[in-house]
Parts: sequence; structure tokens; C-alpha cells
Amino acid sequence: MQNRIYIKDLNTKIGEEIIIAGWVDVRRDQGKMVFFDMRDMTGKVQCVTLPSHVEAIEKAKEIRPEWVLKITGLVNKRPDKNIKVEVLNGDVELEVLNIEVLSEAQELPFDMSLEGYNLELVTELDNRALVLRYPKIQAVFKVQETIIDSFREFMKQNNFFEFQAPSIVPATAEGGAEVFEVDYFGKKAFLSQSPQLYKQIVMTAFERVFSVNKVFRAEPSATTRHVAEFVSLDAEMAFIDSWEDVKDMAEATVKFILEKIKEKNADHLKLLKAEIPVIIEKTPTLSLKEAQQKIFENYGRDVRQEKDLNSQDERELCEIIKKETGSDFVFVYGYPTRKKPFYVYPNPENPEINEGVDLLCRGLEWISGGRRVNDYKQLLEHVKLWEMDPKKIKMFLEAFKYGAPPEGGFAFGAERMTMQILGLKNIREACMFPRDMERIDERLSE
Amino acid sequence: MQNRIYIKDLNTKIGEEIIIAGWVDVRRDQGKMVFFDMRDMTGKVQCVTLPSHVEAIEKAKEIRPEWVLKITGLVNKRPDKNIKVEVLNGDVELEVLNIEVLSEAQELPFDMSLEGYNLELVTELDNRALVLRYPKIQAVFKVQETIIDSFREFMKQNNFFEFQAPSIVPATAEGGAEVFEVDYFGKKAFLSQSPQLYKQIVMTAFERVFSVNKVFRAEPSATTRHVAEFVSLDAEMAFIDSWEDVKDMAEATVKFILEKIKEKNADHLKLLKAEIPVIIEKTPTLSLKEAQQKIFENYGRDVRQEKDLNSQDERELCEIIKKETGSDFVFVYGYPTRKKPFYVYPNPENPEINEGVDLLCRGLEWISGGRRVNDYKQLLEHVKLWEMDPKKIKMFLEAFKYGAPPEGGFAFGAERMTMQILGLKNIREACMFPRDMERIDERLSE
Repeated sequence: MQNRIYIKDLNTKIGEEIIIAGWVDVRRDQGKMVFFDMRDMTGKVQCVTLPSHVEAIEKAKEIRPEWVLKITGLVNKRPDKNIKVEVLNGDVELEVLNIEVLSEAQELPFDMSLEGYNLELVTELDNRALVLRYPKIQAVFKVQETIIDSFREFMKQNNFFEFQAPSIVPATAEGGAEVFEVDYFGKKAFLSQSPQLYKQIVMTAFERVFSVNKVFRAEPSATTRHVAEFVSLDAEMAFIDSWEDVKDMAEATVKFILEKIKEKNADHLKLLKAEIPVIIEKTPTLSLKEAQQKIFENYGRDVRQEKDLNSQDERELCEIIKKETGSDFVFVYGYPTRKKPFYVYPNPENPEINEGVDLLCRGLEWISGGRRVNDYKQLLEHVKLWEMDPKKIKMFLEAFKYGAPPEGGFAFGAERMTMQILGLKNIREACMFPRDMERIDERLSE
Repeated sequence: MQNRIYIKDLNTKIGEEIIIAGWVDVRRDQGKMVFFDMRDMTGKVQCVTLPSHVEAIEKAKEIRPEWVLKITGLVNKRPDKNIKVEVLNGDVELEVLNIEVLSEAQELPFDMSLEGYNLELVTELDNRALVLRYPKIQAVFKVQETIIDSFREFMKQNNFFEFQAPSIVPATAEGGAEVFEVDYFGKKAFLSQSPQLYKQIVMTAFERVFSVNKVFRAEPSATTRHVAEFVSLDAEMAFIDSWEDVKDMAEATVKFILEKIKEKNADHLKLLKAEIPVIIEKTPTLSLKEAQQKIFENYGRDVRQEKDLNSQDERELCEIIKKETGSDFVFVYGYPTRKKPFYVYPNPENPEINEGVDLLCRGLEWISGGRRVNDYKQLLEHVKLWEMDPKKIKMFLEAFKYGAPPEGGFAFGAERMTMQILGLKNIREACMFPRDMERIDERLSE
């Protein structure tokens, strides 16, 4: 739009006649004068329509919240007593000279003028298109944008190549029940649950690779931590010396992301009253056994014979580590080999235990990763032991058949990280268009 | 890997003992001495194993192409007569002191040591995992990475917000037969053919939005220009004055991408003998009628009554424009309203014609875009005229029900642009893991 200026820039235009465009936010008709806030992608400003501008005030009487307007106005400095400090445009207001209505709005389903939003999640999702206009909701997705961008930025800084992992896959080498089936030209195909095998294939050619793409899990139960479609951030790196190289890269990635959020999203964090988790110089790293021992010593619960951590274990471990070190993060490594996928590397000195590693934060798993089996013969043995059909992973096996370096990688979900950083209660709040058993945009009919 | 240096940096280490790691490329056993090239993610270097290094030459006799090695060596300057100019490491060679075998390779299915690659496409795709190791193949995907990155960079420079469009969608508002069906917890869902409606929804909240995501088309025929899954680059912008704002943004985007490719991928373009298409100061812009008239005048084919351009028209139009102006690009606007989707904006003065616009290059459509209907009542009329079920696009309609600015947007496919820029013959060459009727990684059984 010609000559339009953004609302955030109004305080550089004091005394000037300018054009803004946006949505009507709050509106207060005081009879003689009409006040309303205008909102665009950059912020809000208070507009005043004076009785002397006859045509303008006539229009201002008609307009309603969420109408879209183009306004010609005069940027005035507010009287000192009316200045709001630390608020965008707290020191200016716009004297409305002319109003052009670009789009009217039908009557709203709920009062949007309330400070912030305070809807039930179900109402929020039932009105997703409208609710996206709330600055608080936008803040969530602005933070998510930073998570994904800064992951990409850090990967590129470290010579990782971004590839596009496929979504439609032929077989479910890893998967069981939780996979979506696609009718593929009359044949069966599936939606990818993870780019795992593809990133390993591409690693054998490009060494360091990453991908940002949707993955799909047909989660049969409705939890606050799972959705059917989410953004997976995946990295894979060749020529590692040990699983600890993978752990270190994962840790550096998280540090970088958190720093970028602090830098770019300070206002969003404030709006959401969110506190970035604390990551200390060297994140505490425990074997599964050590973690279980700590839980036993601190809470008296004996989980030392278990093959994995359950959610209570994860919560308690994070609490212990937080108390002991101040860190919100803890790495846990050394899970039983046969409890993890076939590609995870067994510790050569104790093959019952593998070289996988998870990063937990605030009671939840954030990142899963580790060293992988790169030796072709060992891979074939695993395929047999895990009772997999080698035909279903032919391309993957071929990548390793012809020379593959020692390697590892890690992955995490953008939505879960968003939820955890912002302290949201439900992962659906961190999905713009969440899909689950009960909803694809609209609630699914029974 | 500790102390490893990248092969591209070897010429800064002349006279030093260093460690490299990578794959054995070409190998020439000359009896007394063994020569072989080593390849890592950064380039290649010639390695020489001298008879005086007894253990090393013993190992060097064993190794075969694609084995993965860690080599300790001395970086020597080549004798002047052996220097290859303008070749990475053309001035150095590595005297091998020690070889550690990290991974052996099985016998290769074809000779990879041939200069470049020269496989049939079907062989290439049947051996995708291995073929990705060819620098020429990698160059294609490095260019594709630049296309996607620079799209993102340009969008961000212009205040567009990146959102994550969903892949699983409830209904096929636009689509007909060419949509994939998903078994969604026993109900029917579909794979998104385009983020069109979602980007318009998000635009009503964020004004300027873009997305980079997979879209899916169940193309029932095997052409050289279509695959079943590709990366769609989508933009949508509010507060436009006319469809020309959209055209200008699309043009500026393409210019930016081409510049970035020239800047970042000069070596890749050279390797692929590719010539970037010419984009001139102001891309020629014709109405459909004018384009048809030009074809008639230049080729004598009368297509002036047709409602769209077919592939021959597109080829001929591009040839004419190239000859007349030097431009490889041409915009065509003003298609019959009812031949395009319901959301395309009809010209208010001549509602039979719409304000959609396509960008053609070298005989193919690159970008499709235009102004959209933003008035809610007009949208409802279109829904009726196009005989659509409004319930299936409820969320979309709600976004426009509550005030939506004049707007438009455009979209293009990363693979098609890659193919066209590089002059590839088949879009499958521009897909790392192409999916079509006949293939998902492996060829589908009959």
C-alpha cells in the first residue's frame, strides 16, 4: 500500500500527516469524540476522532472491532500526564483526519477487546482463525519461528547441509501401530514418523546434514504432550569419535537457540510471562543407572531395575538436578540396547547397553539422539535380531553397504520445545493448526 | 573427530603433518607406489603412499573405492610441472604416513571412478543412496538449498512471518481426483495439495506470511515435470493496492534468488554447465489476450479463443519474449475467472477476467499467484458459484468473516525451479527422494 507506514514507526513521525492501515482493536465511543486503537503487524496506537473532522467522526461512529481501515491522520505527542511509559506509542496518539473502510467484520463470537485472551483451549482452537489475532497467541508462534530459525542458523554455522526429507514413505521399518496409512495410487504407503533413516542415508554423502520437516504419529491417546503432526528438527553428523560428540552438539544447539530467543523475543517472553530454562556451563550427564540411583536416594522410590525412565522418573530426576546444580537440563545415556531402535550403537565394552542419549528439561524429554551403528555387518545382525525385513530398508542398508563413517545424531520437536520454554500447559497451544484424534481444524464428528 | 582438518583447507597446511578423514575416491596402484584420491564434504585431494612407509603402503594396497579412512599425512607442495590450476588442491598432495580404516565398502554396483556420472535416470534413482556421493548430484541439491534459503531470507527481509502449514487436511475444498487419502483414526483425511487456504488465514492475523512445506499431488500420469510430493514455497501479503504489488514481490523474490545462486553456487553451476536464466530490469507482462495475440502473430497458430495457455503456448510465448526483449521470464495475467479457483479476485471492471498472474520461464510456469477475494460476502457468493461446501472451509471463511484486508500472494515449487535453473531434463533429478506412481525409493511392485 502506497505511503503506508507501520504503526511501530509512528513516534518518528510526530507532527506529520501519515497513512496507517490495520484492524480496529478496542473502541470507546465517548459521544463527542470517538477513541479507538488500531492494530497492525507491528503494534497498536490510540486514535482520536475529533468533532471538528465531520466526515471522519461519522465513519468512526460506524466502525466496529476488527474492521479493516486505512486511516489518514496526524501524529500528535500526548500531553505529559497521558504518556504511558514502556508501551509502544505510549507517547503519541493519532488524530484521525480520514477513514477508509477496507473491510467490515461480522459480529464477533466473543469479546476480543478484553485485555489479553483468556479462553478455554477448546474455544481457542474452535476459533483458531480469529484467535491468531491476539498478540499473546502470536507471541507463541514468533518464539517458535525463532526456535526453528536458530536451529537452522546454528546447523549452517557448523557446516550442516539442509535436505528435504520425504513425508510419504514405503515401509514402517521402525513403526508399529502409530503410523498413518496413505492410499498411494491404490497401493499402501505411510506417513513418515521420523526422517531418521533418510538423514543417515544423506549423511553418508554429505557428512553433516539436517532437516526441518513434518513428521506424523497416529498417537492413539489424547495427552497434553502429543499431536499427530509436528515439526521435527533433525541433525546427523559423520566422523564422530564417540556419542559425546553428539551430546556436545545437541547441547551447543540448545544453548544457541535459547540465546537467540532471549535476543529476539524478549517482548514475547514478557507478554507470556515465560522464563527461559537455565542451561549451565556443562549440562549434568548421568547414565540411566546413575539417574535411577539418584531417584532412589532422593525419593526412596526404587526404579533401579527398570529399563527406561517413566514420566515420574523424568520429573523427579529434573527436580533433583535442578536442586543440586541449578540446571534445568540433564542428559541421560546408556539405555538397554534391545529397548531402543536397531540403529543405536551398542557400547563395545558392554553391548547390553547402548550409546543413545536423551536430553531432559523440566521433567520432559526434549532431545533424543546418540551414536549409530555404521558398520554394515553389524547393521545386518541388528536387522536380524530386531526381526526386521531388510527389504523394507533396502536404500538405507545400501548407504551403509558402501562405506559409512562413525556417526550419530539427534532430533527434537519444535512444538514441544516451544511449549516447554513458554511453560504452556498443552502442546496444542504450541501448534498453529493442531491435529489429534479429535480434531483437524474443526472437531471431527463422532 | 579430534584434530581432523577439512580437505579444502589442506593448502594452508603445506609442510605440516595433519589428519584428514573421508572416502576413497579414485585409486591407482602403481606397484611401488599407491596413489588414491580422498574425498570429504569439502573436496578431494590426491594421496601418495611411498614404499618407505611400510605399514601405510600395505594398507593402501588393501583399500578400495568408497572405503572410509582416517589418514595421517604430510602436506607436500606438488612439483611445478604437476600443478593443476583452478582445481582444489591442484597444488598439493598428501604423503600418507598412516591409514586407519573406519569402514570398508562392499563391491560397488558400478564403477564410480568415472569422471562425473553418466547414469540413466532409472539407474540413478535405483541407486540413490550411493549416487548422492557424486559431486554433480550434490551440486543440484546445494543449488536447491540456496533457492529455499534465499526465498526465506528475502521474505524475512520484507517482514514476512514464517508459519508451519499443516500437511494433513480435513477436506479437499479445491481438489478433485489428485488428492491422497489418509486413514485418520478410522476417518478420512487428506494430504494437503497447497497451503493456500492456511496462508490466507494466517495472513489475516500476521499480514505478511510465508511457508516452506511439502505438498502432495496424486498426479495420475508420469510426466517429466510432476512428482507426487514436492516443496512448495508460498507467500501471502495483506494491504496490497492491486495484483501488481503481488507481481512485483514475486519478481523481486526471483531476482533475489537468482542473485544468491550466482553468489553462492558458482562452482556448482560450472560443474553442471548451467546458465542462470536472464531476468531483465522489468519483466515483460502480458494479458492472456495479448499473449495469445503474440503467438498468433509470430507462429500463425490461432489460440485466441482458448481459456488458458497450454504447454506449446507457454514454450512459444517464452521464445517470442526472449527474442524480443532478452528476458527468459514473462508474466501473464487476466485469466477467465471461472477457470481459476474461487479465491482469485475478479477484475471489478470486467468480472469475467480475474487478477491472477503466472510467471513463465523457459517455457514452463514457475510461479502462480494473484490478488484474492477478501470481501466476505463476495467469498460466500463464489463458494456458491463454484459449488463448494462452505462447511469444508469453515475456518478459512471465518478468517474473512471478521475483517480481512485487500491481499494476494504467490507460490512456486522448489524442485521445478531447481530443474529449470539447472536445465535438468526431468524433475526427478531435482528431487532427492522422488515419489511418483511408480516409485517410493524403490520401484513399486506391479
